[in-house]
Amino acid sequence: MLSQSDIISLNKGDAVDHFLIIKKCELRTSKANKQFLVLELADKSLSVNSNMFESFEEIYSKVKVGDVVKVKGSIDDYQGSPQIKVKSIKPAKFEDDVTAMDFMAKSKRDLNEMKKEFFNRVELISNLKLRTLIKNIFTDDKFEKFSLAPAGKSWHHSYIHGLLEHTLEIIKICDLMCDFHSEINRDLLICGAMLHDFGKIEELGFETGFEYTDKGKLIGHIVISAMLVDEKIKEIKEFPEDLKNCLIHLILSHQGKLEYASPVVPKTLEAITLYQADELSAKVNAYKNAIATELKTDSKWTKFISLVSTDLFNHGLNPETEKQINESLFD
Amino acid sequence: MLSQSDIISLNKGDAVDHFLIIKKCELRTSKANKQFLVLELADKSLSVNSNMFESFEEIYSKVKVGDVVKVKGSIDDYQGSPQIKVKSIKPAKFEDDVTAMDFMAKSKRDLNEMKKEFFNRVELISNLKLRTLIKNIFTDDKFEKFSLAPAGKSWHHSYIHGLLEHTLEIIKICDLMCDFHSEINRDLLICGAMLHDFGKIEELGFETGFEYTDKGKLIGHIVISAMLVDEKIKEIKEFPEDLKNCLIHLILSHQGKLEYASPVVPKTLEAITLYQADELSAKVNAYKNAIATELKTDSKWTKFISLVSTDLFNHGLNPETEKQINESLFD
Amino acid sequence: MLSQSDIISLNKGDAVDHFLIIKKCELRTSKANKQFLVLELADKSLSVNSNMFESFEEIYSKVKVGDVVKVKGSIDDYQGSPQIKVKSIKPAKFEDDVTAMDFMAKSKRDLNEMKKEFFNRVELISNLKLRTLIKNIFTDDKFEKFSLAPAGKSWHHSYIHGLLEHTLEIIKICDLMCDFHSEINRDLLICGAMLHDFGKIEELGFETGFEYTDKGKLIGHIVISAMLVDEKIKEIKEFPEDLKNCLIHLILSHQGKLEYASPVVPKTLEAITLYQADELSAKVNAYKNAIATELKTDSKWTKFISLVSTDLFNHGLNPETEKQINESLFD
Amino acid sequence: MLSQSDIISLNKGDAVDHFLIIKKCELRTSKANKQFLVLELADKSLSVNSNMFESFEEIYSKVKVGDVVKVKGSIDDYQGSPQIKVKSIKPAKFEDDVTAMDFMAKSKRDLNEMKKEFFNRVELISNLKLRTLIKNIFTDDKFEKFSLAPAGKSWHHSYIHGLLEHTLEIIKICDLMCDFHSEINRDLLICGAMLHDFGKIEELGFETGFEYTDKGKLIGHIVISAMLVDEKIKEIKEFPEDLKNCLIHLILSHQGKLEYASPVVPKTLEAITLYQADELSAKVNAYKNAIATELKTDSKWTKFISLVSTDLFNHGLNPETEKQINESLFD
Amino acid sequence: MLSQSDIISLNKGDAVDHFLIIKKCELRTSKANKQFLVLELADKSLSVNSNMFESFEEIYSKVKVGDVVKVKGSIDDYQGSPQIKVKSIKPAKFEDDVTAMDFMAKSKRDLNEMKKEFFNRVELISNLKLRTLIKNIFTDDKFEKFSLAPAGKSWHHSYIHGLLEHTLEIIKICDLMCDFHSEINRDLLICGAMLHDFGKIEELGFETGFEYTDKGKLIGHIVISAMLVDEKIKEIKEFPEDLKNCLIHLILSHQGKLEYASPVVPKTLEAITLYQADELSAKVNAYKNAIATELKTDSKWTKFISLVSTDLFNHGLNPETEKQINESLFD
Amino acid sequence: MLSQSDIISLNKGDAVDHFLIIKKCELRTSKANKQFLVLELADKSLSVNSNMFESFEEIYSKVKVGDVVKVKGSIDDYQGSPQIKVKSIKPAKFEDDVTAMDFMAKSKRDLNEMKKEFFNRVELISNLKLRTLIKNIFTDDKFEKFSLAPAGKSWHHSYIHGLLEHTLEIIKICDLMCDFHSEINRDLLICGAMLHDFGKIEELGFETGFEYTDKGKLIGHIVISAMLVDEKIKEIKEFPEDLKNCLIHLILSHQGKLEYASPVVPKTLEAITLYQADELSAKVNAYKNAIATELKTDSKWTKFISLVSTDLFNHGLNPETEKQINESLFD
Repeated sequence: MLSQSDIISLNKGDAVDHFLIIKKCELRTSKANKQFLVLELADKSLSVNSNMFESFEEIYSKVKVGDVVKVKGSIDDYQGSPQIKVKSIKPAKFEDDVTAMDFMAKSKRDLNEMKKEFFNRVELISNLKLRTLIKNIFTDDKFEKFSLAPAGKSWHHSYIHGLLEHTLEIIKICDLMCDFHSEINRDLLICGAMLHDFGKIEELGFETGFEYTDKGKLIGHIVISAMLVDEKIKEIKEFPEDLKNCLIHLILSHQGKLEYASPVVPKTLEAITLYQADELSAKVNAYKNAIATELKTDSKWTKFISLVSTDLFNHGLNPETEKQINESLFD
Repeated sequence: MLSQSDIISLNKGDAVDHFLIIKKCELRTSKANKQFLVLELADKSLSVNSNMFESFEEIYSKVKVGDVVKVKGSIDDYQGSPQIKVKSIKPAKFEDDVTAMDFMAKSKRDLNEMKKEFFNRVELISNLKLRTLIKNIFTDDKFEKFSLAPAGKSWHHSYIHGLLEHTLEIIKICDLMCDFHSEINRDLLICGAMLHDFGKIEELGFETGFEYTDKGKLIGHIVISAMLVDEKIKEIKEFPEDLKNCLIHLILSHQGKLEYASPVVPKTLEAITLYQADELSAKVNAYKNAIATELKTDSKWTKFISLVSTDLFNHGLNPETEKQINESLFD
Repeated sequence: MLSQSDIISLNKGDAVDHFLIIKKCELRTSKANKQFLVLELADKSLSVNSNMFESFEEIYSKVKVGDVVKVKGSIDDYQGSPQIKVKSIKPAKFEDDVTAMDFMAKSKRDLNEMKKEFFNRVELISNLKLRTLIKNIFTDDKFEKFSLAPAGKSWHHSYIHGLLEHTLEIIKICDLMCDFHSEINRDLLICGAMLHDFGKIEELGFETGFEYTDKGKLIGHIVISAMLVDEKIKEIKEFPEDLKNCLIHLILSHQGKLEYASPVVPKTLEAITLYQADELSAKVNAYKNAIATELKTDSKWTKFISLVSTDLFNHGLNPETEKQINESLFD
Repeated sequence: MLSQSDIISLNKGDAVDHFLIIKKCELRTSKANKQFLVLELADKSLSVNSNMFESFEEIYSKVKVGDVVKVKGSIDDYQGSPQIKVKSIKPAKFEDDVTAMDFMAKSKRDLNEMKKEFFNRVELISNLKLRTLIKNIFTDDKFEKFSLAPAGKSWHHSYIHGLLEHTLEIIKICDLMCDFHSEINRDLLICGAMLHDFGKIEELGFETGFEYTDKGKLIGHIVISAMLVDEKIKEIKEFPEDLKNCLIHLILSHQGKLEYASPVVPKTLEAITLYQADELSAKVNAYKNAIATELKTDSKWTKFISLVSTDLFNHGLNPETEKQINESLFD
Repeated sequence: MLSQSDIISLNKGDAVDHFLIIKKCELRTSKANKQFLVLELADKSLSVNSNMFESFEEIYSKVKVGDVVKVKGSIDDYQGSPQIKVKSIKPAKFEDDVTAMDFMAKSKRDLNEMKKEFFNRVELISNLKLRTLIKNIFTDDKFEKFSLAPAGKSWHHSYIHGLLEHTLEIIKICDLMCDFHSEINRDLLICGAMLHDFGKIEELGFETGFEYTDKGKLIGHIVISAMLVDEKIKEIKEFPEDLKNCLIHLILSHQGKLEYASPVVPKTLEAITLYQADELSAKVNAYKNAIATELKTDSKWTKFISLVSTDLFNHGLNPETEKQINESLFD
Repeated sequence: MLSQSDIISLNKGDAVDHFLIIKKCELRTSKANKQFLVLELADKSLSVNSNMFESFEEIYSKVKVGDVVKVKGSIDDYQGSPQIKVKSIKPAKFEDDVTAMDFMAKSKRDLNEMKKEFFNRVELISNLKLRTLIKNIFTDDKFEKFSLAPAGKSWHHSYIHGLLEHTLEIIKICDLMCDFHSEINRDLLICGAMLHDFGKIEELGFETGFEYTDKGKLIGHIVISAMLVDEKIKEIKEFPEDLKNCLIHLILSHQGKLEYASPVVPKTLEAITLYQADELSAKVNAYKNAIATELKTDSKWTKFISLVSTDLFNHGLNPETEKQINESLFD
């Protein structure tokens, strides 16, 4: 784990001796026809420019966007914005134990706890074909990628482990709905919940930031998920055709409306449940994050959030007092 | 409780000696300038016409739409549809212990259990002002009306006790979301959940069927609720202004979008949670009912449901087997 | 080929000795608790009811909806509508050489000519991987099904061989657009055109009428096509990843807008071309058919066509004279 | 009334000895860890920045945003924009007779004339209960606030006294419509016109600029008006229930469509009249203002106005000549 | 003027000796291959069928749809609906002084008064070119057609003289708005008001009912008006180009939005005024008519009016008392 | 034809001796109350500012926006952007043979070839009245303007000769559709294709850039075309009324939807064909241009294109190899 002062807290002239991640690394040519290196270096607190006009050739050959490097130098000031006057840049070594992940936002929930919750729930799937399918899909490799992924690029659960956190919330909401309605096929619904966003591990790249891949943009996580599930079901003998169709329908319809990019709308009881559970988990997380990060200075209101066409209100009415009491409610 | 054969099971010529509810009761004039009485009589299974050309004056003076009556006569046939040839019609007596409610659909949940759940939850509200407000609103009289009301005219939870059943579902979903997010003000959210549809007891008439009242159509349950809460808060000393605004905001915004008749969109974390929890509870109930009642003959598909612009699929994949297993999951 | 008088031309009392297709075949119970058989029998000109109260048990055990049968009897009249008084019904024999297809609308283009056009165009695909893919998909079996299918249930090219006719039109429009724009990748576009609606052979059942299958409603022809192409590409060695993504993108985006059920919008030059070519072919065919079949009596206007929110005008300005001249234009 | 040169007319080096209003007043800390004061000072013509690095403590303790102050100093230039080099800032004194209102746009109509028009019209309300209600609501205090308020933040009648000017226009349009249609209940309609936007006095703060209040954003002027009218009606004995519902309906529905934030659409003849009269008054005023203030340099066209998705044309065809003639039309 | 009993008041067996209008007149062939004549005959109260099996040849040769005829016969009954058993049908004679107009709804305003109002207002146009244009367009012939026309097929002012009544309302509303805003070019606006719907005299046929013409459907009254004004302006020397563009713009944009079939949106002050004045006049008239004609039996509510997506409320609060008082307001 | 180095290729200090077009030419006054001239000068590669503080009076009196001038001076640098330090500016002389057109983008197709194609197709119109109409409209003068015009301001075919190129594409697509469907009236459709955008020569000014005219904004090219065709048809004796209506309908409906500014939607077979052919030609051209000009640095993706609500993908899959083969397909 990384332990160093935040770049944002440094003033002009302060020394820099930090691990930073490379956000940009481009060679440019000045009007005087001289090459120089344009770098953007960041920790979690700030992204800072640094132009190198000398001795950058070796650096350029050794590092690339997304790499973590050890930077030595000092803070400079250019037209009111901080810059780094670089003395040396070296790739982080394995023994430094610092990775790009250390520079990204992360879920506040504990990964191991979430992992345990997930696999415990897998064991409770009573339909053998479905449980086998889930296990065949969530292999160690895939689960590792799945558990790292954010649930979105910027809107909800858009942080490392966010996809897993989001999936677990939906599973719990769905289980609650099954308690209300015995007509829901619980196994089918829970498997749909586990798989619905699985394709995001191919839709999004999240090694050095969260960006859509070419495949993600051209095909989208919904169909990526569907094609994968279709393929994995073919490997299971005598998987019932109608169960397959209903499961793929759950994945395809989980965004609820055609205009939200679902190619079919929910047509089964499980499908409408999954869509609404997804909405509930996603929207609440998104509003919470927006209220936390988009407040205007000296205001209880965020800036206008165009995705929801409104500004949001941070009322500041203290939930804590009650919380302590409530926590003992269900003992 | 009513115990008699269903009208739908009778054949031409069979005797009728049934309690029925009056759906229509109108005097008309024939071309020959003679008055006659047009009746529509129903039990839960069927609604049947009956025209009386003789001796109807006393009947007409004693009964009205919504009354329960004891009908004697026999089943006749008119152009392929059953009719009742009436011999006598008399208002049900008090000791018959039959009311209009006996002819309406009802929640499958037990009323007393639901009532207990509701008031237990009220006691857990830790904020004293809010708990007082809830108790002042849900007086015995009002709660009785509230506990009878359907949550809607025809779409979701549209049966006696439906509003209470719906409200309890939302409360539980909201409590679960509070478990996920400590930033939510639990007391505020739960009170919003309890009050959000309260105005439906004035928006809908449900004595003899579910119909909108004039006030319901002109003002709507959202503003009826808001005006009532505003009035009741004024009776509580030093109720904080910002808490009042946030609570009324919860009520006003709970349909989530302007085009769904909310005059403001959700702008707080509690408001977005309540809206999405309401959607989840309402939609799943609505789809369940539509799948149960709108199936086409010999088909796994319902007719086209215009409210959701699709037909729905009754896959028939048995949830029961798994259910038994699952029920022991959380012991 | 079927040669018999049209049912619609018969009058009351006329003898019936016709091959007809069974549209409905249901046992019902009368009020008098007696079983009878409800039949709907059709040729291309008319669909006629026939209720059998005697000797229907053997018939009911031998035929089902979609079967072609030889019906003997006579035309009767029931409340102004023709009925058939049935004397005997027997399944058509193999040697009768009559099938359900004889009772459905068909493309006016010659099937063999279309088939030749299609496979000639396949040979002109210069990219070997793509040409192989097309050949692997359009096997004899699959092509036969493909060449029978309509392009839609009721709107455009909704007749036997319609899907092939529609596909050929799009191919020609796309080839013309490639002539205008050398930037378009012709092989990629033409393969997309050939495959874009392929999934309709699983989406629609068309043995006895055009109906959506369960799979068709739950998954849709777009994703069915995509899953199939994904599977077939995996069988070809070293099929380039980016070519695969672009081809699947063509299929997924070919309905042009999310609200038209495409899960992604067109993002490549080929994709926008395919979408617009599809629109052009489909809309012109649909309007032509609507103008031919939906004219109001004694009017140059069709009834209101809700799919396009207008009525359509049959101006009757004679194109024939010019046509003869024009036909020699491009010799 | 304020009499001083406009800031915008001053050049670098010119002396400043002006009453100005404070738009921003924030303490900041420089990189060198030194505090300084950031001010934004404005008259009607311009808003100008001024940073104070010395002797600002006393100023900061005495003034706040919205205050009118007497500023002495001179005009400076920073990167092409004017700044004020401040020598002294003092709060305006009571005897200076300058208030924040002097820095805001105002209606061109005379306030006293408008007030007289309004109360004359009140006297003409023939229904005693309604006239009493109006008088109880428009008390001296409330009317003063009402008569100061703008009708909107920025779009139409967005200036001091704008709400009163707008209300009077609507009243006259509604009276004209009553002349056309005797079916309209004139008293009801005119009272609805008077009250429809009354809640804006709580929705908008307009002491130092036009900003929405927390209550305004969370509840909105429509429901604020409705709750107030509901409360005031309860204080009048035997106010007819149906009249109350119709009056509140007028307020709730006056924005005409759900998506314009009315929780119910117009369902009475008065309601549709009020909505359309409001639209007419608001849109014409808004377009007039936009044409006057948003013209592009050297153009007869305004910039693109996003609220109406078009640019607007100032044709410049002289209405004056005709006007003189027309003015004598109705003598 | 027509003086005879209403058909709707007649009973079976009553004699018919009435002028009626022919709504349908078609030869049909029975199953028995015998020709008969299908007639639909109507007065203002009712439309009644009559089939003639004998002696109809001469009638068929002499009358057509839209003709007024003298019918002798008696009222018969067919499956519960009245029919006319015809003895003789003769075309009305000139001296009968009965025309198709006698069978259509008419404005309640006096035609001569409206005509006078219109031409008085024309004289007040101060711009000579515009006044000349109006006079050249509203020639005696054209004005007669214009003054007969309804303003619409079924929604607002859909009765004889309705277009003139509607135009006068708009003129008065526009004059009122000019009183508020001296920036409006009154002459331009009033001419736009006079001409905006002029094309309806070619869009609608209204000799025997209100039906769109082919030209009306293919081109529409907006462009018909624009083409005519363009043509008539060319006949006036030195008509200013910008005045022409602004006037045609008024016509084209008067439906306010592209989706309402205006090819351009309002971009001038006059254009927005005309659009909103048109809306006000049209909507209030339409709601008034709907409330008068679409009430459900025994209800204060109309049936659901799909054009406005709501039902409407006839509150019945008496406007008459106040009206008498109000009428003396402006003396 | 212009032969000089591109401005964009010059570095600071390099000499300028170029023909450039004037994009801006405004007198301004400095804070020091001194006049100076603000120029924007451009070739195809770049637009560059130049402020003149001395000796600009004569220049200002001789040139205006849109003029081509000979500029002498050198490249300077102002805050990172290139500027021109002007020594002299002189209007281009006639013998320089340089016009504003030399600074605008042009179609890659040869003008003469396109002209020939167009008039060859005119000769093939078999209906004499229609051919005459086309010839009367496309007089030498008009055709010259038509052949210069772009088809749009910035979206598709937005370059000199673009309107002609676009029109020819549509003609060919329409001819292909006529080959598929003998029901289409080929003459009518092709004339509609030729005329549909003709009004753009008055809607757009394209002498010095592509800007909408006042008439263009107030009336629009659709109605301009319709009014012109209406006028020209009146000059042809006995032009059939229904043919006129159908032709004008083609023009009016060619944007396909009301919200795309067509005052009527397509109601004939020709109209739907023209609309879809227009869409196909326009969209493919627009996407091609966007992919060519809007790519992000080092990316296969363009920036977000708001007109189509997506970014676009430049897959780079080489079409060339196949193209060579395909070119010989149809020999």
